[in-house]
Amino acid sequence: MNPDIIRERQNAAFDPEILTNILDGSAEKTRRRREIESLVINDPDLQHEDLNFLSRSERYDAALKKSAQMILKIREHGISDPDEIYSYKRCLHRGRPEPLDLHLGMFLPTLLNQSSPAQLDAFFMPAWNLEIIGTYAQTELGHGTHIRGLETTATFHPSTQEFVLNSPTISSIKWWPGGLGKTSNHAVVLAQLYTQGKCYGLHAFITPIRCMKTHMPLPGVVVGDIGPKFGFDEVDNGYLKLENVRIPRENMLMKYAKVEPDGTYVKPPSDKLTYGTMVFIRSMIVGESAQALSKSCTIAIRYSAVRHQSELRPGEPEPQILDYQTQQYKLFPLLATAYAFRIVGQYINATHHRITGDINEGDFSGMPELHALSAGLKAFTTWVANAGIEVCRMACGGHGYSCCSGLPDIYVTFTPACTYEGENTVMMLQTARYLVKSYKHARAGQQLTGIMSYLNEPQHTIQAQSVSSRRFVVNINDLASLVEAYKLRAAKLVETTAKSIQVELQHSKSNEDAWNNSSIDLVRASDAHCHYVVVKLFAAKLSEIGDTAVHSVISTLALLYALHGIAQNSGDFLQAGLLSVPQMSQISRRLKGLLSEIRPNAVALVDAFDYRDEMLNSVLGRYDGNVYEHMFEWAKRSPLNHTEVHESFHKYLKPLQSKL
Amino acid sequence: MNPDIIRERQNAAFDPEILTNILDGSAEKTRRRREIESLVINDPDLQHEDLNFLSRSERYDAALKKSAQMILKIREHGISDPDEIYSYKRCLHRGRPEPLDLHLGMFLPTLLNQSSPAQLDAFFMPAWNLEIIGTYAQTELGHGTHIRGLETTATFHPSTQEFVLNSPTISSIKWWPGGLGKTSNHAVVLAQLYTQGKCYGLHAFITPIRCMKTHMPLPGVVVGDIGPKFGFDEVDNGYLKLENVRIPRENMLMKYAKVEPDGTYVKPPSDKLTYGTMVFIRSMIVGESAQALSKSCTIAIRYSAVRHQSELRPGEPEPQILDYQTQQYKLFPLLATAYAFRIVGQYINATHHRITGDINEGDFSGMPELHALSAGLKAFTTWVANAGIEVCRMACGGHGYSCCSGLPDIYVTFTPACTYEGENTVMMLQTARYLVKSYKHARAGQQLTGIMSYLNEPQHTIQAQSVSSRRFVVNINDLASLVEAYKLRAAKLVETTAKSIQVELQHSKSNEDAWNNSSIDLVRASDAHCHYVVVKLFAAKLSEIGDTAVHSVISTLALLYALHGIAQNSGDFLQAGLLSVPQMSQISRRLKGLLSEIRPNAVALVDAFDYRDEMLNSVLGRYDGNVYEHMFEWAKRSPLNHTEVHESFHKYLKPLQSKL
Repeated sequence: MNPDIIRERQNAAFDPEILTNILDGSAEKTRRRREIESLVINDPDLQHEDLNFLSRSERYDAALKKSAQMILKIREHGISDPDEIYSYKRCLHRGRPEPLDLHLGMFLPTLLNQSSPAQLDAFFMPAWNLEIIGTYAQTELGHGTHIRGLETTATFHPSTQEFVLNSPTISSIKWWPGGLGKTSNHAVVLAQLYTQGKCYGLHAFITPIRCMKTHMPLPGVVVGDIGPKFGFDEVDNGYLKLENVRIPRENMLMKYAKVEPDGTYVKPPSDKLTYGTMVFIRSMIVGESAQALSKSCTIAIRYSAVRHQSELRPGEPEPQILDYQTQQYKLFPLLATAYAFRIVGQYINATHHRITGDINEGDFSGMPELHALSAGLKAFTTWVANAGIEVCRMACGGHGYSCCSGLPDIYVTFTPACTYEGENTVMMLQTARYLVKSYKHARAGQQLTGIMSYLNEPQHTIQAQSVSSRRFVVNINDLASLVEAYKLRAAKLVETTAKSIQVELQHSKSNEDAWNNSSIDLVRASDAHCHYVVVKLFAAKLSEIGDTAVHSVISTLALLYALHGIAQNSGDFLQAGLLSVPQMSQISRRLKGLLSEIRPNAVALVDAFDYRDEMLNSVLGRYDGNVYEHMFEWAKRSPLNHTEVHESFHKYLKPLQSKL
Repeated sequence: MNPDIIRERQNAAFDPEILTNILDGSAEKTRRRREIESLVINDPDLQHEDLNFLSRSERYDAALKKSAQMILKIREHGISDPDEIYSYKRCLHRGRPEPLDLHLGMFLPTLLNQSSPAQLDAFFMPAWNLEIIGTYAQTELGHGTHIRGLETTATFHPSTQEFVLNSPTISSIKWWPGGLGKTSNHAVVLAQLYTQGKCYGLHAFITPIRCMKTHMPLPGVVVGDIGPKFGFDEVDNGYLKLENVRIPRENMLMKYAKVEPDGTYVKPPSDKLTYGTMVFIRSMIVGESAQALSKSCTIAIRYSAVRHQSELRPGEPEPQILDYQTQQYKLFPLLATAYAFRIVGQYINATHHRITGDINEGDFSGMPELHALSAGLKAFTTWVANAGIEVCRMACGGHGYSCCSGLPDIYVTFTPACTYEGENTVMMLQTARYLVKSYKHARAGQQLTGIMSYLNEPQHTIQAQSVSSRRFVVNINDLASLVEAYKLRAAKLVETTAKSIQVELQHSKSNEDAWNNSSIDLVRASDAHCHYVVVKLFAAKLSEIGDTAVHSVISTLALLYALHGIAQNSGDFLQAGLLSVPQMSQISRRLKGLLSEIRPNAVALVDAFDYRDEMLNSVLGRYDGNVYEHMFEWAKRSPLNHTEVHESFHKYLKPLQSKL
């Protein structure tokens, strides 16, 4: 064990185990998570290769091997709780995506939720036993977010009782679905339904694409891998071009909408029924943001504790780089953010469970707010985490660029979350739509409930631009007061934006143009709303923490999070008249004090995230801090070192020398 | 040609060719650059493979092949002007790094600048003819920025007239030098010189590492590739462990410092003599920031002109995504930044040439300012470009993640510039040191000249925190007035920081602690200084543009750049009392107006960067806008598509099915 990192752990003012239990939900949950992780790590059947040294085809191969093993192992161990399956999978694949993700996460749930009873009988068990391996084919080459624009067609022919599926244009080729390229033999294809000469919009069709025996593409099916991407090497994201592919009438998912044998179309009872999965996945992504940022902070902070560089005082030994104020200013706000997002992830997960319960009992009233919240928080947390991972990487200096740091991999694995399951700007605008609507309701006298209730309060009409006329005075050392400031900032931005849309409308712009011309402000208002929610939830969590030492250090983090956010957005708070110029200077000084307070607890705070070395997969982030010797060992395994002299020497350099 | 992109070009209000000439320096320079590019692109010997489909070893092989070809081709074509060689190389390697970069860019120049005449005779021609292939081995596993901390030793033994080189610890292993792993047979090794029992600090030693005939590592030399990184697949960054490696006394570079045969050490006349290369490379990096951002903007803006998505108005066809205000707000400020950085790159390049001329005539007076400027601007431009590339990538939606977009590659190729040749935070602090020193000189009555002269002006003593007491009123539509605002913001931050250091010192902190405790503010002051320089240079460039239409569009970009920077840093301008809250709202509105003004010229503005499709290497950024059909063609070439059924199906899925 590296002596620096031993000393860091000795100096911590709290017991990280208590904090780990809080993050997991309870001591029992920590125990069970560790048990599952051990099942994976200690299983001699489950060998982990360092993927950094493999080609893409080898990576896909290695991932598929594990995916296949997992199916058997989980049944063997009798793991059936979804959270536990998730833990097992995350540990086995070291947090990376895998070729069966869409089969397990989209294809099976879609069958469960949208099949008629007869379809369940026909398709579910074969899919459960992986005779049918499926994916979910929605996006097309020319169409992403706006699914109404999808071009794939499914035309019903009563004479043969078949749908004929077609990709009528280049831009209608299905593009991106995971597992589509090489792994799946079926896909749920989203297509425009045509029957009796009329288009009835998007519907889902179970479409066989490869022979279940030979795995060869079926007639009319052009299918393949879309090529290398930024990360996701293990997944065969695919393309699918359909040329008069015929499927039986029974392959349209018919729990809700139906096409009868004569071609008559039967409408679904509600169009909100497919809403739930999307909201669930966006909620999950909030948790992923927290994970990615927690891992990155663990690596960067542990490394900063063992890395020595430059000099603070002449003649003294090189200090740990964690002692530099600039390094603390890069990493500690991100550490605070990782904790904030963990807490937000827990909250939104719990909210989702609660509202799903309500929906199952026929109460849909919580859905719009959850929808707006999950959209905005998905965008807010992924953007922040995405940038934060890179800050962590660059805070590790040159070695952060080496794949052995694990950070490049965390980045490329995480960054797609900014775009998939709802492009972030579009998500922010969806939340903004709900905010503006809520604001209008409040102005019309309707009493808002839940997280939007702050828009009821009439106090923040825009006048108070000078500091003197402020009614509310922020106490920068009081978290509750800062939550209030975030609330008023959000309220102010929502109000300003709603009014500016009104002004645009008065200049006889159409609703749509007024909206587009205000969209910069709308995104800003959504961002402020989400920021408020995060600060509020972080503050609220403190009351649940019983241990004094842990309470103290988490309170410091929460204060750092809130004040740092204000410093980064000082213009907003000054413009809203919520804070004065002298207060901004106080905040700058206070922030420096908080960095010093966190410094002795920094390593213990990342230890509390409790990532095993196998999960972090980072030489720089090793628990024992023995970085350099393991970097050297790792490097020796580079494929370029398989021979002392690379063949290119004989091919190019030797002949060149003879010509000069 | 895609009809959307044809229409964009027809609607442009200016002739991009005129702008291209301005960016190149003259019409003649444009002509010559294109001529050189054609020499590469039309040369049937120089085949370009799509590196995305190759393994790392194959990429290294392909790059080394081109590097070897280049040596011959350049001599064949008689290209000898350094700028022209650079153009040739950039085009041949498509802007990527290559294994001989350090031989050409560091090893040969070091020989030229630091060899004694006898050493030049012995080493230069063999190196010029690639019998000697060299690299520059400075950084170690445990030591980067702080070169005084390097641990490698070179001990002189008069008995054998040899230096004995050693890597005494794990952390002293040389790490990162490009071309060290497999390509080079020599290295300039930076080591602590010991002679007559005393350490004389860092000196440079020409060290043979591989046999010049067999290319096998020499006795005592442990050398290899450091393994996969975030990008830079084509380069064999290497490690080097030296175990009692003996080299003749004549291999220490002895133009300045010397060790005599009896071991007597002779001091160099000045220690500023090796300064120049570093400043030159940092200046170059400013230009690289401009290039990387220009390319990214070209791709994202062209794609946004042909991509249609969602709906602005119900019933109408899907609009070009470039019509969304949020998309414009992401891309147009970056486009303006790319132009700004081009101009800054030209300026710093010219300044470097001027000051190098002065130095050659013995006048070193311009060096400190150039040193501070190049350090700060290197950090400022690389950070901004680094984040900007990712904004461009994410503005392309899902397809931005595909390697066919070219954007992942631009990012991983560029991002190391934030760390190499001076870690950015360290660079900012170097500039800050110069700023604080200049401020003190000015306060002491010394008249500053050059770019720092603004610190002479006494007007910005900190009092004016309320808007009413401002003496200077910014006109947000007048670029000169905005330059003034940036200047005062920088002056204010330098002053505040210098004073806060004084306060720390009064609290009996040491100089070093006072500095460290102010380093967040110091970085912020440097950042503001660099921002001011960029706005100032952008504004100054306008007077050189004769063509009215081009002048108009570039003026709009400059105004956008300046106002966007204020909006992003509104807290600074409000805190300094330079702008009022109502002015901030005006700026938000004006920014939207500027986005609309730039919209019709956006495609022409990126066309003016004049990247051939071969250089962009992006399906999304194609000049003809025919994106989708070429994505499909590209994807078919994915290695995973070499067989219809991947072998993993038979290895894992088939057996799994039989077990379930």
